[in-house]
Amino acid sequence: MINDTIAAISTPVGEGGIAVIRISGDDAVQAADRVFFGKIKLAEAATHTVHYGFVKDPQTQIRVDEVLATVMRAPRSFTMEDVVEISCHGGFISVKKVLDLLLEHGVRLAEPGEFTKRAFLNGRIDLSQAEAVIDLIRAKSDRAYQVAMMQSEGSLSKQIKALRHDLVELMAHIEVNIDYPEHDVEEMTNAYIKTKCSAAMERIEQLLNTARQGKILREGIVTAIIGKPNVGKSSLLNTLAQENRAIVTDIPGTTRDVIEEYVNVNGIPLKLLDTAGIRETSDLVEQIGVEKSKNALAEADLILLVFNGADSLTPDEQTMIEQLKDRQTIVIVNKLDLEQRIEKEKLQAYFPAERIVFMSLLEQQGITDLEKAIASIFFSGHVESSDLTYVSNVRHIALLKKSKQSLEEAYLATEQFVPIDMVQIDIRNAWEHLGEIIGDSVGDSLIDQIFSQFCLGK
Amino acid sequence: MINDTIAAISTPVGEGGIAVIRISGDDAVQAADRVFFGKIKLAEAATHTVHYGFVKDPQTQIRVDEVLATVMRAPRSFTMEDVVEISCHGGFISVKKVLDLLLEHGVRLAEPGEFTKRAFLNGRIDLSQAEAVIDLIRAKSDRAYQVAMMQSEGSLSKQIKALRHDLVELMAHIEVNIDYPEHDVEEMTNAYIKTKCSAAMERIEQLLNTARQGKILREGIVTAIIGKPNVGKSSLLNTLAQENRAIVTDIPGTTRDVIEEYVNVNGIPLKLLDTAGIRETSDLVEQIGVEKSKNALAEADLILLVFNGADSLTPDEQTMIEQLKDRQTIVIVNKLDLEQRIEKEKLQAYFPAERIVFMSLLEQQGITDLEKAIASIFFSGHVESSDLTYVSNVRHIALLKKSKQSLEEAYLATEQFVPIDMVQIDIRNAWEHLGEIIGDSVGDSLIDQIFSQFCLGK
Repeated sequence: MINDTIAAISTPVGEGGIAVIRISGDDAVQAADRVFFGKIKLAEAATHTVHYGFVKDPQTQIRVDEVLATVMRAPRSFTMEDVVEISCHGGFISVKKVLDLLLEHGVRLAEPGEFTKRAFLNGRIDLSQAEAVIDLIRAKSDRAYQVAMMQSEGSLSKQIKALRHDLVELMAHIEVNIDYPEHDVEEMTNAYIKTKCSAAMERIEQLLNTARQGKILREGIVTAIIGKPNVGKSSLLNTLAQENRAIVTDIPGTTRDVIEEYVNVNGIPLKLLDTAGIRETSDLVEQIGVEKSKNALAEADLILLVFNGADSLTPDEQTMIEQLKDRQTIVIVNKLDLEQRIEKEKLQAYFPAERIVFMSLLEQQGITDLEKAIASIFFSGHVESSDLTYVSNVRHIALLKKSKQSLEEAYLATEQFVPIDMVQIDIRNAWEHLGEIIGDSVGDSLIDQIFSQFCLGK
Repeated sequence: MINDTIAAISTPVGEGGIAVIRISGDDAVQAADRVFFGKIKLAEAATHTVHYGFVKDPQTQIRVDEVLATVMRAPRSFTMEDVVEISCHGGFISVKKVLDLLLEHGVRLAEPGEFTKRAFLNGRIDLSQAEAVIDLIRAKSDRAYQVAMMQSEGSLSKQIKALRHDLVELMAHIEVNIDYPEHDVEEMTNAYIKTKCSAAMERIEQLLNTARQGKILREGIVTAIIGKPNVGKSSLLNTLAQENRAIVTDIPGTTRDVIEEYVNVNGIPLKLLDTAGIRETSDLVEQIGVEKSKNALAEADLILLVFNGADSLTPDEQTMIEQLKDRQTIVIVNKLDLEQRIEKEKLQAYFPAERIVFMSLLEQQGITDLEKAIASIFFSGHVESSDLTYVSNVRHIALLKKSKQSLEEAYLATEQFVPIDMVQIDIRNAWEHLGEIIGDSVGDSLIDQIFSQFCLGK
């Protein structure tokens, strides 16, 4: 556990009152002491204490910032190493100057996710818990956050470990049979293997069943608002945003002009597409039929198709209806406050009643109906589970599938009376795939890849 | 000093490893204890210690986040009140959930700047130091940061206090003369007043001389890059950005599509206008003459006028030259690597030689010359001062001017043998104006106004 000492800015970049630089490693306290000047040296400080002082360039003695330095000694820290956190003035310059000074004095810039990676490598958390950390940070809705929180506390790990425990027992049982065949009749073992494999497969299947919801919770339902000009698309957008405490953000790694907007509908995050366009033109007059709208349509998981109830359907709208009838579409008939001229029967011919919502955005009518319709698509008949162990990570889903497949192969092999040591191999594969989820038996390159998706400073 | 307890998110909003919520006030520790669950209650914790635990909803016992809570008791804190800082997972949800819980349990959301306001009201810092805090956070270049740092440490306050001290002495001297006129001959007092006033005026003038640079350091030189298509505007932009470690940011309070870019040229921040436009179109073909460019031109403090040295001047370019000859313009003749056809004599007829820079952006030639030309405009002949007490705040500048004017009036009044108690009034005014800079004798509404410009959480 001899680690070099790393540092990074752990707070988001931007204007704010406070910015925090985290330093971790065997030399963290000494490195901080090279640039921190307070009443006492941090090396003399007790663990978990905070010290007021200044960061100065030790050569020039020029003050860089007035700071608070917190010392947390190994193993009682996020990384289980010695950690110093320097809390300085927010903004761009201070934090950068402090970091630069540290980097000039024997500290290495941390890679993205490297602090969490160390927490994993030093055994404080397993891999699925580490992965949950980034989900916590990226969560776009309360529910997604709760799922990540459960996972970070080890809810998934617990289930995976229980499954693996059962598979180890099964393997031990088979081992005995291989070593001492006289102890058991082979058929009995086969029956036992089949029972155990079935049980494990069923539990994996249950986890996989949460995956669709888990993925949506994590990434949001990609939603397009479609309709001809002046039917109320921007009102709908604003209503959804206001009613549901929108979190507006641009996502790192994308260009600045792609603005994505998230709204939470009963805890379900909708990721609204092309909202900038809708807001900007206040209607998509110019954009009907253009590339942008087409892309949005192609990409969408959910389409909110808006009509003006006071107008008859235009030929364009009839085309839309036909094109979208097989998609996850909710039809919104707006302007219920006006006299209705829309051909309801045509809509009803293409869409089931529970997918057609009558609203007056002007008078704020029908919003609850819309929210219910969206929720019903999300939960699609399932009663919402109070157990928030959702599998949401693509890597986990793939490994669960692989594990289940290996168990299926073991089951089939048993039916076909394949020699029992061959069956053993399948079961071991299933056990190993599960192990990869929590970070047992994973290679360095996979670990590097997983943590590289983290943000800097975590 | 009985204060209600306030809380706010003190780190910037965005994805990051850590977010910090600051709580301050008489009830800060108790309020934190209502939602924080660790090994011990924070009420029992020593000051300046850090505690690991969980924020939970006390009603439901649902875990909201895994956190570190730091206790800093009055008066050893930023606000001189009891302060608790809760460091939780970064991102949007965690920090908002923790804050919401606190707000449900007897804590009020802090107004922008309210923590710093309390530091001021409780006497830890004076008003000019408080104002420097926001300049520290907003600083866009090292030099601007150093100026703000000096001011936050009280460099300006010190000079203002020295000035006020001299004026108090002067007033005391006059007072004696008024009370005991027999003690002194009036002419002698008049001579004394004139000497003292001159000295004070001179020192105020010195401070005001720093104001232009101070303002530019603080806000950046608003710079427009102008030129016909394909002369190298976007190359220039990229070169400036790369060479000078650009800090790209959008400024809070402006709309998202206005992106401003800062580059530091020898520590001088240039705020480049319409860089989005330049980057996007890779040339301003469509934009020549359009409203946007015109606005940029009108707003600019500095114009970088770019020509292709391999081409003759077009009539449009000749118009530009004439229009911009009286502005702060640096002429850039690009493409020095090609055979030169540009009519240099025409450029030289309108612009002094030191404002014409020959470059090859392709071959990265002439960049140092451009940087020198920019620096020479900024320092405009002055040798750069090593004393970084720049007056950069508009409010301070206005008060210094008022103070100087009052002193001028006192001086003139003395020359005109106005009764000495009338002169006294002018000197007192000068003294009070200076006092407003450091926050002596300022009204509540002014204080509110100043701190409302702060960001939330500071």
